[in-house]
Amino acid sequence: MPTPVQRIDFGGDYNPEQWPEEVWTEDLHLMKEAGVTMVTAGIFSWAKVEPRPDEWDFGWFDRVMGNMADAGIDVCLATMTASPPPWMSHRHPEILPVTAEGRVMHPGSRQHYCPSSPVYRSYARRLVERLATRYADHPALAMWHIGNEYGCHTKQCYCEVSAADFRRWLHDRYGSVDALNDAWSTAFWAQAYSSFDEVLPPRSAPAIPNPAQQLDYWRFSNDALLGCHLTEKEALNEITPGVPVTTNFMAHHKPVNQFEWAGHEDVVSLDFYQDPHDPRTHLHAALTFDLMRSAGGGNPWMLLEQAPSAVNWRQRNGPKPPGAMRLWSWQAVAQGSDSVIYFQWRQSRGGAEKFHSAMVPHGGTGTRTFREVCELGREPGSVAELAGTRVRQPEVGLVQDWNSRWALELEARPSTALQQPELMLAHHRPLWEANVPTDVVPPDRSLSPYRLVVVPNLYMMSEETGRRLTEYVRAGGHLLVSFFSGIVDESDRIHPGGYPGPLREVLGLRVEEFWPMAARAKQPVRGGPVGETEADLWSEVIHLEGAEAVARFSGGELDGLPAVTRHVLGAGTAWYVGTRLPNAAMRSLMDSVREGAGVEPVLPGLPAGVQTTVREAPGREDGAGSRYVFLLNHGAGEAEVQLPYAATDLLTGRSVAAGGRINLEPRGVAVLR
Amino acid sequence: MPTPVQRIDFGGDYNPEQWPEEVWTEDLHLMKEAGVTMVTAGIFSWAKVEPRPDEWDFGWFDRVMGNMADAGIDVCLATMTASPPPWMSHRHPEILPVTAEGRVMHPGSRQHYCPSSPVYRSYARRLVERLATRYADHPALAMWHIGNEYGCHTKQCYCEVSAADFRRWLHDRYGSVDALNDAWSTAFWAQAYSSFDEVLPPRSAPAIPNPAQQLDYWRFSNDALLGCHLTEKEALNEITPGVPVTTNFMAHHKPVNQFEWAGHEDVVSLDFYQDPHDPRTHLHAALTFDLMRSAGGGNPWMLLEQAPSAVNWRQRNGPKPPGAMRLWSWQAVAQGSDSVIYFQWRQSRGGAEKFHSAMVPHGGTGTRTFREVCELGREPGSVAELAGTRVRQPEVGLVQDWNSRWALELEARPSTALQQPELMLAHHRPLWEANVPTDVVPPDRSLSPYRLVVVPNLYMMSEETGRRLTEYVRAGGHLLVSFFSGIVDESDRIHPGGYPGPLREVLGLRVEEFWPMAARAKQPVRGGPVGETEADLWSEVIHLEGAEAVARFSGGELDGLPAVTRHVLGAGTAWYVGTRLPNAAMRSLMDSVREGAGVEPVLPGLPAGVQTTVREAPGREDGAGSRYVFLLNHGAGEAEVQLPYAATDLLTGRSVAAGGRINLEPRGVAVLR
Amino acid sequence: MPTPVQRIDFGGDYNPEQWPEEVWTEDLHLMKEAGVTMVTAGIFSWAKVEPRPDEWDFGWFDRVMGNMADAGIDVCLATMTASPPPWMSHRHPEILPVTAEGRVMHPGSRQHYCPSSPVYRSYARRLVERLATRYADHPALAMWHIGNEYGCHTKQCYCEVSAADFRRWLHDRYGSVDALNDAWSTAFWAQAYSSFDEVLPPRSAPAIPNPAQQLDYWRFSNDALLGCHLTEKEALNEITPGVPVTTNFMAHHKPVNQFEWAGHEDVVSLDFYQDPHDPRTHLHAALTFDLMRSAGGGNPWMLLEQAPSAVNWRQRNGPKPPGAMRLWSWQAVAQGSDSVIYFQWRQSRGGAEKFHSAMVPHGGTGTRTFREVCELGREPGSVAELAGTRVRQPEVGLVQDWNSRWALELEARPSTALQQPELMLAHHRPLWEANVPTDVVPPDRSLSPYRLVVVPNLYMMSEETGRRLTEYVRAGGHLLVSFFSGIVDESDRIHPGGYPGPLREVLGLRVEEFWPMAARAKQPVRGGPVGETEADLWSEVIHLEGAEAVARFSGGELDGLPAVTRHVLGAGTAWYVGTRLPNAAMRSLMDSVREGAGVEPVLPGLPAGVQTTVREAPGREDGAGSRYVFLLNHGAGEAEVQLPYAATDLLTGRSVAAGGRINLEPRGVAVLR
Repeated sequence: MPTPVQRIDFGGDYNPEQWPEEVWTEDLHLMKEAGVTMVTAGIFSWAKVEPRPDEWDFGWFDRVMGNMADAGIDVCLATMTASPPPWMSHRHPEILPVTAEGRVMHPGSRQHYCPSSPVYRSYARRLVERLATRYADHPALAMWHIGNEYGCHTKQCYCEVSAADFRRWLHDRYGSVDALNDAWSTAFWAQAYSSFDEVLPPRSAPAIPNPAQQLDYWRFSNDALLGCHLTEKEALNEITPGVPVTTNFMAHHKPVNQFEWAGHEDVVSLDFYQDPHDPRTHLHAALTFDLMRSAGGGNPWMLLEQAPSAVNWRQRNGPKPPGAMRLWSWQAVAQGSDSVIYFQWRQSRGGAEKFHSAMVPHGGTGTRTFREVCELGREPGSVAELAGTRVRQPEVGLVQDWNSRWALELEARPSTALQQPELMLAHHRPLWEANVPTDVVPPDRSLSPYRLVVVPNLYMMSEETGRRLTEYVRAGGHLLVSFFSGIVDESDRIHPGGYPGPLREVLGLRVEEFWPMAARAKQPVRGGPVGETEADLWSEVIHLEGAEAVARFSGGELDGLPAVTRHVLGAGTAWYVGTRLPNAAMRSLMDSVREGAGVEPVLPGLPAGVQTTVREAPGREDGAGSRYVFLLNHGAGEAEVQLPYAATDLLTGRSVAAGGRINLEPRGVAVLR
Repeated sequence: MPTPVQRIDFGGDYNPEQWPEEVWTEDLHLMKEAGVTMVTAGIFSWAKVEPRPDEWDFGWFDRVMGNMADAGIDVCLATMTASPPPWMSHRHPEILPVTAEGRVMHPGSRQHYCPSSPVYRSYARRLVERLATRYADHPALAMWHIGNEYGCHTKQCYCEVSAADFRRWLHDRYGSVDALNDAWSTAFWAQAYSSFDEVLPPRSAPAIPNPAQQLDYWRFSNDALLGCHLTEKEALNEITPGVPVTTNFMAHHKPVNQFEWAGHEDVVSLDFYQDPHDPRTHLHAALTFDLMRSAGGGNPWMLLEQAPSAVNWRQRNGPKPPGAMRLWSWQAVAQGSDSVIYFQWRQSRGGAEKFHSAMVPHGGTGTRTFREVCELGREPGSVAELAGTRVRQPEVGLVQDWNSRWALELEARPSTALQQPELMLAHHRPLWEANVPTDVVPPDRSLSPYRLVVVPNLYMMSEETGRRLTEYVRAGGHLLVSFFSGIVDESDRIHPGGYPGPLREVLGLRVEEFWPMAARAKQPVRGGPVGETEADLWSEVIHLEGAEAVARFSGGELDGLPAVTRHVLGAGTAWYVGTRLPNAAMRSLMDSVREGAGVEPVLPGLPAGVQTTVREAPGREDGAGSRYVFLLNHGAGEAEVQLPYAATDLLTGRSVAAGGRINLEPRGVAVLR
Repeated sequence: MPTPVQRIDFGGDYNPEQWPEEVWTEDLHLMKEAGVTMVTAGIFSWAKVEPRPDEWDFGWFDRVMGNMADAGIDVCLATMTASPPPWMSHRHPEILPVTAEGRVMHPGSRQHYCPSSPVYRSYARRLVERLATRYADHPALAMWHIGNEYGCHTKQCYCEVSAADFRRWLHDRYGSVDALNDAWSTAFWAQAYSSFDEVLPPRSAPAIPNPAQQLDYWRFSNDALLGCHLTEKEALNEITPGVPVTTNFMAHHKPVNQFEWAGHEDVVSLDFYQDPHDPRTHLHAALTFDLMRSAGGGNPWMLLEQAPSAVNWRQRNGPKPPGAMRLWSWQAVAQGSDSVIYFQWRQSRGGAEKFHSAMVPHGGTGTRTFREVCELGREPGSVAELAGTRVRQPEVGLVQDWNSRWALELEARPSTALQQPELMLAHHRPLWEANVPTDVVPPDRSLSPYRLVVVPNLYMMSEETGRRLTEYVRAGGHLLVSFFSGIVDESDRIHPGGYPGPLREVLGLRVEEFWPMAARAKQPVRGGPVGETEADLWSEVIHLEGAEAVARFSGGELDGLPAVTRHVLGAGTAWYVGTRLPNAAMRSLMDSVREGAGVEPVLPGLPAGVQTTVREAPGREDGAGSRYVFLLNHGAGEAEVQLPYAATDLLTGRSVAAGGRINLEPRGVAVLR
C-alpha cells in the first residue's frame, strides 16, 4: 500500500461542472495563489459524465484532470456515485429509498438510492470501472474518494428490496429461524417467526418495535452501505491496485460503524463542520479527531471537508470569526491530520448549498475568507516535515462502540435522555481540558497501550469485553466506568446475575435499581475529589461488594448511598460513576483518577483553553527534529505558556529558550519543534 | 354468575414462554414465598400455541396450568389473542391497521390488527374455542382475561376493511343517507352524501374534518373493538358458561367507553401505572379507581396490572420509592379493588419491556422490590375478610361521558386546551382532598343515591340529561356544573335557545359569549367561598336568569360579571362555575357546595394528604366486623389521626380506643375494623 | 366594466342550505334590522344544487335569490365550486390532492381537489355555466364570487396529474431541458435532466430539495390555482359579461400571488380575521389593507369576510371585545374598503365552524354581537358618500414580492428565521405609527408616485429592479433597503459581483459576509437616529463604497463596522439597514428617512395608537365635501386630537372648528368631512 500523503495537503472540493470553462482558468491561477496542493473532484459528476444510460461524456473531465496535472495539483478522484442521475430513478423507480413510515424518497436532492439496490450497485460499478480504466495512469490521480458521506441522508431503507436483503442477511447471521427467535426474544409479545419469509424491516408499528430487530436493522443497514462501498472498492483494487482509497466519514455519525469501515480504507478521512455559534464546537472536534486517528490505528488521517466559514444547513449559520478557521484547521493537524481540505473551492451560484462558504466566496478574492485561506495555505508548506508524523501514543483509551449506541438510543430505556455523543463528550472533555491525549477505541481493541481506560455508559457489552476489562485491571490497569454500562449482551438481552453483569467483579459492586432523574431534577453528591456538587440525569442504588464509596448521594431517597466508587483489584484500580456529574466535578474526579494512574498532561499548568498535543516522527529518532509540540489557544484571552525545553516555532521561525515563554493571541497557534 | 373473587388476590402476569422450563420450578417456589394466589397467563402466547396456521402446540401450556393447579394458584387465563403471530399478517396483509394518514402499521410490536378484520376475528375465535375447550374443566382456571388492553395502540383503523365496516355501521345507525346527512350537518361545506357508498372514515383531509363524522368514528371504533371482544366472549360463554370473564381497562383511556364495556364484564379490571415523578399520581389513581368501581356498579373490581416499581415507556422512568408500591396498592383496595396484581412476575431479559419492573427483578430476590412484594403479599392474607366488601355508597356523583370527551377534544372548539382528563381531575381532587367519597357515573345513570352531583365541562349532553338534572335539583338535589357543559346534542349540534340549552332552567342563567383565555393569561375572580383568586383557561359572559352571583370577575373586559353562580330551584340548589379556578379556590368552593348539600367527609379534620375510605360488608351486618376504615398517608411527613371510635388495625393487630390516635409514617397505611 | 360598489355595502356570507326554509323568513326580517345590503351566497352549495352528477336542483336556490331580490339585497353570487360534492372523488379518486410526502387528502372537510385536475375543472365549468345562465338576468345578482379562498388548504398538490401538468408548465417556461438545467443549477448534486419526462414535483427527498425546483413549484401551483379561477371566469365573462367578478384573498397568503391575480379581478376582495388575543392584530390588518388597496391599483376594495367576534380555528379563540369589531371594520373602510361583510350571517348549528361567530349568534338577537352588528349596520348608511372615494395617494411605497417570499422561505438560507410577513410588518409598522400612508407594491410597478420607497429584505430581485431603483434614487427618490435584499436572480442564483449585486451602486456599498445571529443573541448598535439600541437576528460585514455609516455595530466581532448607511446618489438618497432593529429604533430611523424625503404624516402630533387616513373623491373636487379624514383610536386610553381645520364628524353629526379638539374613546372612531 502506498503512503497516500507526502505533505500536509491543502485544497478543496472542486466542482468545475458548475462553471463555464473560462472560469476554470481563473481557478488554476487562484489555486496556485492559495497554495492548493490537492483537490477532490467529481463527487457529483455522474449526470454529466453519463447523461443518459451508457452514454458517456468524459471529455470535459479529461480537461479538468489535465489542468490539475499541468498545475501539479493532486486529485483525490471521487467515484462519482454519490448521487445517481435523474434518469436512473425514472427508469428504475425501485431504487428509491422508502422510510419506516412507507414514504418514498424522491430525486431532487441527493443520495436517493436504496443501499441494497442491485440496480444502483450495478450502474455504480460500471461507472467506477470506466473511470478507473480511463484515469488509471493519469498523472493527477493521487487517490480515490469512494462515494461520499455514506448514510448522511439515507441511513436506512425499508423498501421491499431492502426487506429481502435483510432476510438474506439474517439468514447469514443466524442460520435458523430458531436462532433468530432466540436472539430477538420473540417469545415476548407473540412475535415468534415460523420462517425467515415472515420477517420484515422494523417498519412503523403500533407500539414499541422489537429492539433486537431494530438493532439488527442498524447493523444490516451499515452492512448495506458498506456493501455499496466495497462493490466500488473491489473494482478499483482490480484496475488501480496501487492507488489508495478513502471515503469521507462524518462526526457523531450513527449509521456508519467507523471502526469497522476504517479497516477497509487506505487512509481514514473526515468531514467536520464546526458550529461557530456553539462555544463547545472545538470540544466536539477534539473528540472526533481523536476518534478518526484511533480508527486509523494512529496513522495520519485526512481532514477532507471543512467549511472555510459558515455552513448553510443549520437554522442560523454564523461565519467563522477571524482566526477561527486557522485555529480549527491546525487543531486537526495537531490531532493527527495530514491535510486541510475544504468544501468547496468556489462558492456555488445556485443549488441547495450556495450559501455554504467556499475558499473563493461569492464576493471573490477581496474577502476575508479568501485572505485567510491564502494565509493558511502558506503555513502547511512551512511545516511539510510534519507529514507522516504520528501523534504520540496516548496513555488513555476512551471506549466507544457503534453497537452500543444503536442499542442505547432505542426507545423504552430507563431514560431516553441518554444519547451517546453527549455522554462521550462528558468523558472526553475533562481529559482534553487537562491536556491529556486520548485514544477513542472500540471495546475489542487491545488495552495494553493504556494506563487508564475510560468506559462511558457502554450499555451493550459482551461478556468477553467484561472479562478483558477485568484482566486489564487485575494486571495493573486503571479503569473508569460510568453508569448504565454492561447491561445487555449483543442481542440487547440483560446480562444475568444483576447489573452490571460482566463488570461486577472488576467494579466490586452490584447495581440494584436505576433511578433515572426527572428532567431538570438535581441530586446533591458529596465526597472525595467530587467535593460538593449537584448531579442530574441519572442516579441508582449501588451495593458495594469490595469497592469503597468515594462520593455519596446526599439528601433525597438515596441519601448516603454510594455515587462514585473505587475498587482495587489485583494490581489495578477500577472506578465507577453512578450518576452524571457536572463538568467541574467530573474534571476533578478525572484528574484524581488520572493522577492515580500516573497519566501526565502533555504540558502541566497551561492556561484554560490552551490545547497542546505532540506529533512524533518515529523513523527520525535523531533528537530535536523528531518531536513537534502544538499549542492552540481556544480561550477568549491572550495566553502565556512557559516551555520546559528549548524550541523553535515553525510558523514564525522564532526560538524560545528552555523556561522561556510563548504568548498566544486569542485563536493563536504555535508549532514547536 | 359466580363471584369471581373470594379473597384479596395477589399475583402477577405470568409469561413462562420467555423462560426455559427449569426457571418455572424456581417460579413456583418464589410465588409461594411472595404469597401469590393468582396469575394471569397466556396473554402473548398465540405464536407459541399456534406456531403455524392451525398447527397447535398446547403441551407446554398444559404444564404451566398443571404447575399452577399443583401450587393452588388460580389462573386468570388470557385468550391469547392480544397480538397475532407474524404468520397471520404475512398471509393476510389486509389485517394490518392503517392510520388516518394512510400509514400501514406493521408487525414487530403488538396489536397490529384491524379491529374490523373478519380474518383476525375468525382466527381469534378459533383459538378461543380451542383454548376454552381444552381448559374448561381445569382446576387452575379461575377466570378469563379476554384480549388485552383493547385499543391501547390501535385505537382506530382507517383501512378499506374498516371503511366498509363503518358504512355498514352507519347504515345500521341512521337507516337512510338523509338521516346521516342531517346528523352530520353535511349542508356545511358541501358535504352532502348521495349514498352510503360515498362515505369514508375521517382520513387526512385538507381542512378540519367533519366533527360528527369524527365523533361517529370514535363510536364506531369503540364498537369495532367491542365486536372483537364479544366475538371471544360468545365463544367462552358457550363453552365455559360458569367462568367469569374480564378484560383489563386502562386509565384515562379514550377509545374504550368503559361504562358501556363494563356491562359485558363479569368483573371490571384495571391496569394502572403510576408515574413516581408526578406528585399528582395518586390523584389520578383516586379518580380512576372511583371510575372503575362505579363502572362495575359498586362491586369489587380488580387491579389487574400495576408496576412493582418503574415502567419503561415514559421518557424518564423513576422507580417507586420505598413504601410507595405498598401505599398505592392499598389505595386500590381502599377504593374497592379485591386484587393486587402486577405486570409482571419475572422481569424479561429481552424485548421491548425488559426495563419494566417485575416482582422478580433482574437483580433477583435480593432486591428491595422483591422484598416489598413479599411483605405486601403477606398483608392481603391478613385481611381476607375484606374480599367482597363494598365501598360505602358515596353521596357525591361525578359525571363523566365518553361521547362528550370524543366530541370535546376535536378541533375547532373555542379553546383546544380543554381536555377531559385534566378537567375531571380538577373536580375530583377537591372532593378527594376533603375525604369525600365520590362515584364517577355516566349521565344516564340514576342520580338518586347522591346528595351532590358534579358535572365537569360536559360539552355534549342530551336534552334528556338536562331534564333529569333539572328534576334532580327540583327534588332536592345539589348540583355543580362547570363551564362549556350542555352545549351540543348527540350529533355535535348546538342546542338551540342559547347556551347551555338543556341546563338553562336548572342553572337559572344564560351564557351569551365564551371568552377563552390566552395561554398564560390570568383573570382575577372574587367573592364568596372563592375569596380572591386568579382564574385561567376560560371565562364567559353569564346572564343571571334566576341565579345569583356568588363570585365575580374582577378587572378586564368582564369586570363585575358573574363567574360563579347559585340557583335555588324547588328543593335543591344548582351551582355554576364559569371559569377555571385554581385548586385552592375550587377546594373552598366545593367545600361550601358540599356542606350545603349535607355531604360529610369520611373523617373530619384529617391532616393534608391523608386519604380515608370505608368498605362495608352489607351481608355481614353484625356490628364491628362489618365496617373497614382505610387510612393512607400520601403526604411527605408523619400524620396523626384521631379516631372517633374504637378500632383495630388489621395490619398490625393494634387496637385504638375511641378518641385515640394513630400515627401514620409517610406512605403509611392502616386498615381499621 | 361596471362600478361594482355603489355604497358601503354591509352584510354577510349567507348559507341558507344549513337551515329549514322557515328560518329564511326570519333571516329576511333580521337582515333588514341589521342594515344588510349585500350577501354572498352559494359558496358551499354544490352538493345541494348537483346532488348527483348532472342531476340538478336549483329550485331552493331560486327561492333564496328571489327572497333577496324582494328584500332589495344584492347577492354576491358564489360559483359554488369551492368544494366538490362527495360523489366526485368517489367516482374520480384521482382528483384528490396528494402531499409532498405522498399522503392523499380525502374528502370530509373542503377544498379536496387537485388544482390541475381536468376532471374537477370540467365539472366546475359545467356548473358555472349552468349557474350563470340561470341567474344572468336575476335582479339580485350584483357580482360573482369565484371559488373561495383559493389555496387556503390545498396550496400545492404532488400527484401524478400535477406532475404531468408541471412538466407541461416547465416546457412552456423553458422550451428546452438545457434551459431548465441552467435555471435550476442542476450541475449541482448530479441533478441534470436528460428529458422533461424525468422531472417531478419536489416531493419528499433525502436531503435539501433543489431550491429552484421548489420555487418553480410555488409558481406552477399559483398558476394551477389561477387556471381554475380563469376557467370559471371565462365562462362567466361569456355568459354575464356585465357582471363584475371577484375572489376573496387572504392575509399573508403565500400560495396566491395577489398582485398577479388582482389583474384578473374587477374588484379586489379580502377575508381578514383579527386575533383579539394578539395586541398587534390591527397592525397586521393595516399592512394587509394597504396591500389590498395597492393590488387593486388604489381602487376601493371589499372586505368580504371578517368575524363578527371570535373565530374557531385558533388554539384559543377570544371574542372581539366591545367596540373592537366596529373599530376594525372602520379601519378597513378608512384604508379603502367599500364594504363590511362578515362570515357569516347565521351561526351554524353543526359542522366544523359552528363555534365561528356570526352576525346572528347561537344566542340569537339578544346578544352583544347582534347589537353591535345592528349599530354598525346603521353607520355605513350615514356615510354612503364615502363609496367610490379613494384613499389619498400615499407618498411611500413598500415593496413586496411573492417570488421573493417563495425563495426566501426555503431551506438552507443563512438564517431560516427570515420570514416575509414579520419582516414586512417591521417596516410597515413604523410608518403606520407615524400616520404615514403607505402603498404596498410589487417591484415592477412604477415608483414615480413615491417620495420614499422601502424595500424590506427583498432577497430575490432582478437586475432590472436594481436598475429601476438606482434610477429612482438618481432622479431624486429616497430609498430604504434592508439586509438580504438583491441577493439572487429570478432562478435563485446569486447575482455575480458581490452582494447585493443589483443594489451596490445605489447603496454605495458592498456586503462581504453575512453574520446571522444565534437565537436570542443581541448586538448593540449605536449612532445617528438609531441612538443606542440592541439589534438581533442578523448582522453583516458592510464595506462602504460611497455610502457613509449612520450607525455602527458596537462590541463583538463586528465592533465599529457600519450597521446603517446612507448614500447620496444624484438627486436622491439611499439608506441601508444591515441588521434588525427593535421597533423603537426602527421608528426613529424611519422618521429620519421620511423627513429627509419630505413625507409628512396625515396629521402630526397624534397620540400613540391613533390611526388617521384620508379618502378623497377625485371627481368631486368641489371643496370641503371631497375629503374625508378618519380617526381610529387603537390605544387603550381615551385620546384627544386637535384638528387643524374645521370638520364635521359624519357619525355623530357634530362639527369641530379649526383648532378644535375631538375626544376618542378607547376603540373610538370619527369620520370627518
